Amino acid sequence: MGSDRQDRLERFLCAATAFLPNRLSTAEAVCRHHANGVTLVAPEPPSAVVWPETTEEVAHIVRLAGEHAIPLIAFGGGTSLEGHVNAPLGGVSVDLSRMDAVLAVRPDDLDCTVQAGITLERLNAELRATGLFFPVDPGSGLATLGGMASTRASGTTTVRYGSMRDNVISLTAVLASGSIIRTARRARKSAAGYDLTHLLVGAEGTLGIITELTLKLHGVPDTVMCALAGFDSLDGACRASTLAIQAGLAVARIELLDCKQIQCVNAASGLAMAERPTLFVEFHGSAPACRADFETFTEIARDEGGHDLASATSEDERRRLWKARHDALWSVKTMWPGRQVIVTDIAVPLSALAACVSETAADIAASNLIAPIVGHVGDGNFHAIVAVDPDDGDERQRVEAFLQRLVARAHAVDGTATGEHGIGQGKKAYMAAEHGPAIDAMRAIKGALDPLGILNPGKIF
Amino acid sequence: MGSDRQDRLERFLCAATAFLPNRLSTAEAVCRHHANGVTLVAPEPPSAVVWPETTEEVAHIVRLAGEHAIPLIAFGGGTSLEGHVNAPLGGVSVDLSRMDAVLAVRPDDLDCTVQAGITLERLNAELRATGLFFPVDPGSGLATLGGMASTRASGTTTVRYGSMRDNVISLTAVLASGSIIRTARRARKSAAGYDLTHLLVGAEGTLGIITELTLKLHGVPDTVMCALAGFDSLDGACRASTLAIQAGLAVARIELLDCKQIQCVNAASGLAMAERPTLFVEFHGSAPACRADFETFTEIARDEGGHDLASATSEDERRRLWKARHDALWSVKTMWPGRQVIVTDIAVPLSALAACVSETAADIAASNLIAPIVGHVGDGNFHAIVAVDPDDGDERQRVEAFLQRLVARAHAVDGTATGEHGIGQGKKAYMAAEHGPAIDAMRAIKGALDPLGILNPGKIF
Repeated sequence: MGSDRQDRLERFLCAATAFLPNRLSTAEAVCRHHANGVTLVAPEPPSAVVWPETTEEVAHIVRLAGEHAIPLIAFGGGTSLEGHVNAPLGGVSVDLSRMDAVLAVRPDDLDCTVQAGITLERLNAELRATGLFFPVDPGSGLATLGGMASTRASGTTTVRYGSMRDNVISLTAVLASGSIIRTARRARKSAAGYDLTHLLVGAEGTLGIITELTLKLHGVPDTVMCALAGFDSLDGACRASTLAIQAGLAVARIELLDCKQIQCVNAASGLAMAERPTLFVEFHGSAPACRADFETFTEIARDEGGHDLASATSEDERRRLWKARHDALWSVKTMWPGRQVIVTDIAVPLSALAACVSETAADIAASNLIAPIVGHVGDGNFHAIVAVDPDDGDERQRVEAFLQRLVARAHAVDGTATGEHGIGQGKKAYMAAEHGPAIDAMRAIKGALDPLGILNPGKIF
Repeated sequence: MGSDRQDRLERFLCAATAFLPNRLSTAEAVCRHHANGVTLVAPEPPSAVVWPETTEEVAHIVRLAGEHAIPLIAFGGGTSLEGHVNAPLGGVSVDLSRMDAVLAVRPDDLDCTVQAGITLERLNAELRATGLFFPVDPGSGLATLGGMASTRASGTTTVRYGSMRDNVISLTAVLASGSIIRTARRARKSAAGYDLTHLLVGAEGTLGIITELTLKLHGVPDTVMCALAGFDSLDGACRASTLAIQAGLAVARIELLDCKQIQCVNAASGLAMAERPTLFVEFHGSAPACRADFETFTEIARDEGGHDLASATSEDERRRLWKARHDALWSVKTMWPGRQVIVTDIAVPLSALAACVSETAADIAASNLIAPIVGHVGDGNFHAIVAVDPDDGDERQRVEAFLQRLVARAHAVDGTATGEHGIGQGKKAYMAAEHGPAIDAMRAIKGALDPLGILNPGKIF
């Protein structure tokens, strides 16, 4: 670190400590905990961590950072998968975990307002008595709502309820200038000016630090029915999923696990599912509507080589299945404990899904990689969870080549390099191919709103 | 017009005529037709109109405009209600009506790609054979998809299918630099970088000229059931609407017409509905689901003072009712032919709707104004269609004061000055009160993407 940079950092830390005594740490273990630790992206810890408790405190910290040109990295649950919380240019992590209050729940308006640091798990626990829930389900209950908005998270229920893009009504955020803005009012729709809400959702903390969110809530469905179907082929499972969507079935979740992923899940969760490509499906609605949809799905699945169709409506059974699905990533880590995992994340138009998954499976086999496939196939989004030996240079090269072919395969059918995990550091290399000249517009916006580049630099671009 | 400005305009027109011979006009009647003609906002015709036929031609025109610092106003169907197509700073209208092709319909992906100048009416006519439709329904079939995106249009079906915000997958647009960008790939979701799609939707042609759109399509529902319910009070009608939404009924449309609006519609469409506050409701789904929802709605409506509940499933009957609803604005013009109309457009949280509508009705009566109320009450959005004598200065003052109170009433309950019509020229005065410091962020984005201010200047800000 240059001495000027070190001086600036010290002046910043001095001012920030005076402002938030006992809520700033430079302890190495604390800083390490605030760097990326989940993927192959190397951890790059910040120089310090601060814990603001109000939007005004965040604004003050941002103004201090602007004065001293210090990078700030907003930190939620630390569950992101593309290195979003790393500090490649140094700087300070702004840990929002103390801003975890539910500020208002308005059942009549089907919305709520929360601070950014609340976790998904706690939000839904607090909503339980209202008969409402927040549907976006990225797989980790420890994700914070601010982080989920910043990475434009989605997950298993997006096919029915939408992603963070669709479920944020308004945001309070601190811009690089230190200005506190609210992006929209609480009306369900508005045509009043530029859509700053959607600009901040998915901006990964590079345009502002989200401190509060007003979110859409949904009524807990009368009936939840879960179905499992094993298939002869990946292709058949994908086609069944696509046909279910095209038929307009009210699927709330439709998830694919390939053979290898079923093996991992069986082992990790003590289940005994047949080792076949399997769809986990869930219907939400009235009991007759769920039954009708389950019957139509059964017909579609049989036509595509489905077996062993089983429905489960008991809460316990459903919880066990979805817990197993949510633990897919961890089941892979458990199966190959010495290896690191890289979670790929392409999304393609539905018509291209079956071919894309099949080609990817063939590529994994030909490349001699361990990479179970799991996917939100109702949205055309799937992950290969690549388990790689970090010390095996040859394998790492094969993985790199596989990743590039995978994204190229998505781009060739007008798909995206990332359906839900974001760019962070891990996907920066694909942005030019994905966006072409639109990147220049994104850079212009970044330059206009954060001319000093203090907000999460080194991400996205 | 200053002579420098006149010189620049002449040089631009000379170059543009050479580029698009026979597709540029300076005829006064043509220019007048391209200015706003629907509301109290005075028409301000452009100096010329061009008709590009390709995105590349639009890009060339934009580059020429940049060279000569000439304002360009994108023109779709000319159906906007807030003066969006006026030329307050002079300049040239870019009429996209020749760019009206359907470029692709992909039933398997439930999407299509169209040029920006296609009208809603023609798009749905072209889709008829596919069993799919584009749901956003702003009330004029002559609106173009580019214009609808630019104003973030919504309408009668938004309560079920969302607005333009929710139904645009990707846009092709020409930026002020002349650069052609595509805002997103065709995957149903993506977390790859800033959301330029949503930034351009609702930007009213001030950040780019939309030339192509990829849109979500929806399956034509099996059953469509329409219901009418008259109420003793406006308050009861609003409460019934809100309760239907809160109960999770699958309403595809839920529209309020007050007594005065029913009188206008009866007169204009030769109907004989009871002169009561009336809800027009439509259910989409399977026949049993529609019937079940209709029954629940009947119970809700009766509890809130509803009478004369009638359902209509015949295509003819439904068409006649919805035609009457869509002609609400014209029915007011017909009833008071010497008057001009101003269509107000506030949207408020659902819990505030009933009080807000009732207070507005009382305000209209106390202000001695003619202003039938019609509203997309399922979204908390309603319009007072104020019929004003343009030559009566005292009445105009009362109207102005009423408009200000109306928006203040929306703002007081965290609502918006415009649910669906946009800012244009008509709502500029309310932007500061609505957005506070967020306006500065919007201005910064405008400055970064259009530093010369050539794209639709004088709108929004």
